[in-house]
Amino acid sequence: MTTAQIVLASRPKGLPVTDNFRMEQVDLPQINDGEILLKGLYYSVDPYMRGRMNDAKSYAPPFEIDQPIYGGVIGKVVESKSELHQPGDVVVGNFPWRRDFIVNEKEARKIDASLAPASYYLGILGMTGLTAYFGLMHIGKPKAGETVVVSGAAGAVGAVVGQIAKIQGCHVVGIAGSEEKVQLLITEFGFDKAINYNTTHDITKAIADACPNGVDVYFDNVGGEISDAVINNINFYARIPLCGQIALYNTTEIPVGPRLQPMLLTRSVLMQGFIIGQFQAQFQEGIEHLAKWVKEGKLKAHETIEHGFENLPKALLGLFKGNNTGKMLVEA
Amino acid sequence: MTTAQIVLASRPKGLPVTDNFRMEQVDLPQINDGEILLKGLYYSVDPYMRGRMNDAKSYAPPFEIDQPIYGGVIGKVVESKSELHQPGDVVVGNFPWRRDFIVNEKEARKIDASLAPASYYLGILGMTGLTAYFGLMHIGKPKAGETVVVSGAAGAVGAVVGQIAKIQGCHVVGIAGSEEKVQLLITEFGFDKAINYNTTHDITKAIADACPNGVDVYFDNVGGEISDAVINNINFYARIPLCGQIALYNTTEIPVGPRLQPMLLTRSVLMQGFIIGQFQAQFQEGIEHLAKWVKEGKLKAHETIEHGFENLPKALLGLFKGNNTGKMLVEA
Repeated sequence: MTTAQIVLASRPKGLPVTDNFRMEQVDLPQINDGEILLKGLYYSVDPYMRGRMNDAKSYAPPFEIDQPIYGGVIGKVVESKSELHQPGDVVVGNFPWRRDFIVNEKEARKIDASLAPASYYLGILGMTGLTAYFGLMHIGKPKAGETVVVSGAAGAVGAVVGQIAKIQGCHVVGIAGSEEKVQLLITEFGFDKAINYNTTHDITKAIADACPNGVDVYFDNVGGEISDAVINNINFYARIPLCGQIALYNTTEIPVGPRLQPMLLTRSVLMQGFIIGQFQAQFQEGIEHLAKWVKEGKLKAHETIEHGFENLPKALLGLFKGNNTGKMLVEA
Repeated sequence: MTTAQIVLASRPKGLPVTDNFRMEQVDLPQINDGEILLKGLYYSVDPYMRGRMNDAKSYAPPFEIDQPIYGGVIGKVVESKSELHQPGDVVVGNFPWRRDFIVNEKEARKIDASLAPASYYLGILGMTGLTAYFGLMHIGKPKAGETVVVSGAAGAVGAVVGQIAKIQGCHVVGIAGSEEKVQLLITEFGFDKAINYNTTHDITKAIADACPNGVDVYFDNVGGEISDAVINNINFYARIPLCGQIALYNTTEIPVGPRLQPMLLTRSVLMQGFIIGQFQAQFQEGIEHLAKWVKEGKLKAHETIEHGFENLPKALLGLFKGNNTGKMLVEA
């Protein structure tokens, strides 16, 4: 059979464009013993994918030119030569951007689509939720009564971080880029305060006003000048989990800014970059907490779903324009 | 009786000068019950004192204008109205820059000058040694076979850090500012490699050459461009204890440099500012290790001792010119 796939056609300089991708037809072989044939249902698009489009040393190897993009995908088993999976099962894994694809039985993890919508396993019960959980709880270590600031707060990870921080009893302040997002943070996700960086002249002062006791945990999804403004308000012994630097991903020069070390030193601050993989041994703990909070109604999923496999590149590019609130997905 | 004291006459802008200090005579009162009269033997000068000369929020309150500088001092008990201290005892504490001074009995800790020279209690068995020990062992967490880079390596803390890292079985590289210091690091303190930043054109490359397996722990005493060069070579999951930023202490503008967060993020690096006070509950552990290593001859003290109480300001200013190797002290 043939199917469609989306490959990396060229490496972007600065902001990616649709020409960096190419959709094409590809032949699929017969499936062998131990393999399953899947039909893609939901495809995740995530900011970290921008890094993999570069040919640079990072935590994940670069995507290869003329090869399909890979990412989190929910698929339905169409044909199985595996005892682990039956036709009709719904599974999740790190799969290629193909409409149909064959994977080894061990690469697919079955999900319980009766417990929660299948798409949640790419978001709040998947890497997104786990990234928020481990970054906040294991690096940020918020204590009840402390102040937690989240940048990119209306994004997939940010919205979960803020909700978990509220569950921990913290004063939670979000930073986002539109009035609509700011309203969503307050009304939907229960943030105490939210700041629209696009209409705020002095972000340092806005943070100070929103955080009368200073900032104890800064969960950084964006980097750049927004982070400078938060760090101007950082408390002694604060923790800064570095989860994303989306403000800098598309710069072509080495970004320059105020040196942080004097502030980190004089206030005994911890800053730590992390990837979710380093917490793999503890995933079960994270999933149990997240599932419990979702079930109790304390943690809300919020998704922006684009439709059409062919719109995957457009959806990914939309992340860098702030088009999404919550988790951004494509339904095939 | 009257004695001499050295006060902060004015706050420096940029590099401190001798005019920022003033020596003057002061009357001492009679000593009361629970107090002791001390004669100063050794006075510590430390880079952190520069921060206290500013009127700025930091981990230690600012020195006050027209009031004596305070710091680590070894004194001999001259007169005692305390049951805890006898005349002739040698004690250490955070005392004023006075030739003679009266303190409460609880502010002074008796030292055993038969175990090690009294001056060691301001250095390798005092705050200097503890700073090196906790910063390296509790934040840097070096494992045998890893590579540890130390900047300000010939300074008081740096020389101890390098030696402890060797005791842990690491490949140890020091950065210092003269050929004499570089030689000292190799021959006296057992560093594997040492780099003279004043004669090295491309420090990033020099670090790469000296660290063929990259940098796992960077103990940062200096900040600025030297640190940028080390961080260019940082490994995945590296740890960066921030101990000092002497390169930036005398700048009057907010220092600017390459943004660190993208590198910390993509390589899952931890960076942590610390002050020795946060490890106070564990001091005993540190002192026991340091004393054992000194006794075994594995850890060598190195002191630069200036003479004359009146030379304290000059000795402090000398730190910023790199005049010292190892711990800088003034013997009264």
